Amino acid sequence: MSTDIAVLSQATMKRACEAYIERTNAGDAAGLVALFATNAVIEDPVGSPPKRGTEIASWFADSVAFGARIFPVGPVRGSHSNEAAFAFDVEFTPPNGVRLRIRSIDACRFDEEGKITSLRAFWGPDDICPAH
Amino acid sequence: MSTDIAVLSQATMKRACEAYIERTNAGDAAGLVALFATNAVIEDPVGSPPKRGTEIASWFADSVAFGARIFPVGPVRGSHSNEAAFAFDVEFTPPNGVRLRIRSIDACRFDEEGKITSLRAFWGPDDICPAH
Repeated sequence: MSTDIAVLSQATMKRACEAYIERTNAGDAAGLVALFATNAVIEDPVGSPPKRGTEIASWFADSVAFGARIFPVGPVRGSHSNEAAFAFDVEFTPPNGVRLRIRSIDACRFDEEGKITSLRAFWGPDDICPAH
Repeated sequence: MSTDIAVLSQATMKRACEAYIERTNAGDAAGLVALFATNAVIEDPVGSPPKRGTEIASWFADSVAFGARIFPVGPVRGSHSNEAAFAFDVEFTPPNGVRLRIRSIDACRFDEEGKITSLRAFWGPDDICPAH
């Protein structure tokens, strides 16, 4: 249940989640990668094959290339452990040229240094629609 | 990564999450318990001791006794697996008489029959404030 490490401050975890939003909106792929631990796993969406290492760098390079922009929905939520979650809509334009919007909730787990070790993005096939 | 069972329909999972909100707001403790599998685990908040079996019934009896009311924040998010998540604010009045508001994000996992097997509620010490 993730209580095996010292609990990070809420502020540390929330700042990291907010930095994820800011670095996405700034188109800063390197800044996004820097938020993650070297052994991090991204499952985006939940139920898809996990991404690790260089796959994570490629993932964020694509995110930037697709012009991803995040619109937060309410404040980041913390926990009584080393996890936090946040709801948002994200718009992006994949190579086919049609700009899309996904409604997502991302849940993150952190290591002792405040780096993200796990990001799981909750969105399903019907949480994606054309942006307008 | 929770892909070891057939994926439920998004509609089934989202209806269950919406029923969680509706049954809370209706003060229906039995209706809430009925949404859960018999082996379900509730971790509310994330990082607190898990609740099971009769602890879950007591939890929802308290929720109803405390007049819990949920205000959804955006639509329920599904996944590409048997999980869904939703953001909300909840107000309730604990025995000390001061009505409180918690900003939470709840992530649920479902069994093949659409019952909740795991509910994890993301909220930290600074996600709670007086209701007003």
